[in-house]
Amino acid sequence: MTDLLIRNLRPMGAAPTDMLIRNGHIDTIASGIEAPGVAVEDAHGAIAVPGLVEAHTHIDKTLMGMGWYENAVGTDLRAMIDNERAERVRLGLDPARQSMRHALALAGNGITHIRSHVDVDTDNGLAAIEGVIETRAALRDVVDIEIVAFPQSGLMIRPGTAELLDKAMELGADLVGGLDPCGIDRDPKGHLDTIFGLADRHGKGIDIHLHEGGDLGAFSMELILERTRALGMKGKVAISHAFCLGMPDWNRTEALLSALADQDVAILTTGAPSREVPAVKRALSAGIRMGAGSDGVLDTWNPWNRPDMLDRARIVALKNNMRSDADLALALAVCSTGGAEVMGVAGHGLTPGCNADLALLPGSTLAEAVATGGPVLLTVKAGKITGRDGKPTREMP
Amino acid sequence: MTDLLIRNLRPMGAAPTDMLIRNGHIDTIASGIEAPGVAVEDAHGAIAVPGLVEAHTHIDKTLMGMGWYENAVGTDLRAMIDNERAERVRLGLDPARQSMRHALALAGNGITHIRSHVDVDTDNGLAAIEGVIETRAALRDVVDIEIVAFPQSGLMIRPGTAELLDKAMELGADLVGGLDPCGIDRDPKGHLDTIFGLADRHGKGIDIHLHEGGDLGAFSMELILERTRALGMKGKVAISHAFCLGMPDWNRTEALLSALADQDVAILTTGAPSREVPAVKRALSAGIRMGAGSDGVLDTWNPWNRPDMLDRARIVALKNNMRSDADLALALAVCSTGGAEVMGVAGHGLTPGCNADLALLPGSTLAEAVATGGPVLLTVKAGKITGRDGKPTREMP
Repeated sequence: MTDLLIRNLRPMGAAPTDMLIRNGHIDTIASGIEAPGVAVEDAHGAIAVPGLVEAHTHIDKTLMGMGWYENAVGTDLRAMIDNERAERVRLGLDPARQSMRHALALAGNGITHIRSHVDVDTDNGLAAIEGVIETRAALRDVVDIEIVAFPQSGLMIRPGTAELLDKAMELGADLVGGLDPCGIDRDPKGHLDTIFGLADRHGKGIDIHLHEGGDLGAFSMELILERTRALGMKGKVAISHAFCLGMPDWNRTEALLSALADQDVAILTTGAPSREVPAVKRALSAGIRMGAGSDGVLDTWNPWNRPDMLDRARIVALKNNMRSDADLALALAVCSTGGAEVMGVAGHGLTPGCNADLALLPGSTLAEAVATGGPVLLTVKAGKITGRDGKPTREMP
Repeated sequence: MTDLLIRNLRPMGAAPTDMLIRNGHIDTIASGIEAPGVAVEDAHGAIAVPGLVEAHTHIDKTLMGMGWYENAVGTDLRAMIDNERAERVRLGLDPARQSMRHALALAGNGITHIRSHVDVDTDNGLAAIEGVIETRAALRDVVDIEIVAFPQSGLMIRPGTAELLDKAMELGADLVGGLDPCGIDRDPKGHLDTIFGLADRHGKGIDIHLHEGGDLGAFSMELILERTRALGMKGKVAISHAFCLGMPDWNRTEALLSALADQDVAILTTGAPSREVPAVKRALSAGIRMGAGSDGVLDTWNPWNRPDMLDRARIVALKNNMRSDADLALALAVCSTGGAEVMGVAGHGLTPGCNADLALLPGSTLAEAVATGGPVLLTVKAGKITGRDGKPTREMP
């Protein structure tokens, strides 16, 4: 079913109206639409926003539905990486089933688009990539999934990984990933030349994790910018986390922001409360495309994150000291249209002609929806109802 | 009713057992207790923790139940203060009714003790203090409320405020409050001499808001410590927020932490994601009593905070990068026994003889309860059920 008439919804919190969806696209927005034979859904005055976008997560590694994972790992990045690689085997983590659970949980909560980094390493090979590709196909009409082939355990320090990344791209990954060229891989030139080479050869974009703080992160960011320019990859590169942009040196960060905007390098943030992070309003003012994500959810890394972009908008707002109604609406936009801009989704909006990808939220205003949180009342993907009251309409595996 | 038999609860997440409460105190914890004539509650395997403690909030100023407040104030502290003082009048905020709503919402969520700062200023006089005193009396058997007489709008810069604080203490406030002696009052010596003088004269403690960061906050903290020593007020002073303890200078903060521990000055944190904050594990290691609070909830200041200490434990954990199960349990302890220690609550615990003040939480472990959140399943205050499934048992005004 790709036709649907939604009555009594409030686009972006405005006055109630009706929305007619035809063939998976928004056809008309007006009061009192009549459309005989089309299924009708009453929104009861709920707020409508463009589908929420989970633009930085790891759906291959959630432990959702596998019982509570007792975390005794600590917070050292290298230790967390090595622990996870071993735990994947010990726990018998099935990437197809787990990514299906995670993606459906997101669909239940208003999310219509996901960008997921998916592990590629010499212990587990391409199993995670294959599993998520299976989920992507199975959920083709539920949620769009973009796959980043991600060398989580390191690239130069684990020979054979580059070849696996190459195969992952052949299998159908959408972007090449990367990770802390200095901090993890200890060889920034080698790491970045490899992933930019792969991206160039496959004609794909890049989304690189950059946890490195301060001047170290700024150095890696400069190397990323140099390669983006040299390869003519303007608009095809994204940096996730980008904690170095939160360092206090205004002049240093201003130069970086300006260079990112110049090369149209996008930023993805989680609003990590324990770290320095890119300031949302500053990055947007600099003209940078910015999306958000919850990062890993219920995995061996952390226990706090939820498959819920309303929750993430609140965390981004808390971290950025965004208090006013306008600012909360902005935080939500980063978690919706912002992510869609980073992912290059065409037609993501609430005007006639746009994809009928939307979320119905509780609350009287956008700000209240962010502050009070979900569950999201209804998720619509290409005119089809994929989530209701925070739950996916399709059965969880 | 002060007798109650709770079956099948798991104290601190341990194996299921029963708990018999007699006369508002924990009598016995054992499996298969028989207590003819005593009301029985089945916990269905829920985790039991000592009652949660909201140790830093403002129950006189919530707008709960008054419709969504559209915030267009911005984030300047002075602007937020002045806006609120005017809005109290414009909105017709009734401190008795609003504090009743806030306190009951907390009771519904596992909270058995509240420390609330309550505004005293020359525009609104003692109305807020009188309102919260009324609520405190009305809820005597539901939740313990400690009142801090709080010069929110400034003390030295608003002549007449000191006299009002004096009257507030006579009316029955429990502690003298204060606020940014430099940043707001522009006269640290005058401010601190006044509030310490009032506390000394009334034989009461102090809880002072200190948002001042870096060296400015450290200076004010030193002045607080000097007066604590001089007046022999060891163990009777608390500092809320204490953002300066989050500054990067390890030596400077180490000296402050050591001096705070020496004078047994307690710290109350909100884990504010947008600010530098005291590191929980470091402060506890230094031997400092530490509690937590959600600060204002749904008021003119901010939209994000909730009347929910499980939510606050998650935020404190997120901010402090606490990921392991042990760390999450610690974050929860700060929101329970930690706050009780700051408030000087005797008999707050889960052993026989303790007050029967407890919360039953969902989840398989303490960490899962913090990460996944509420609603809290049952609140018990002195053996009486005051909250169920996140709602107070007493009707909201």
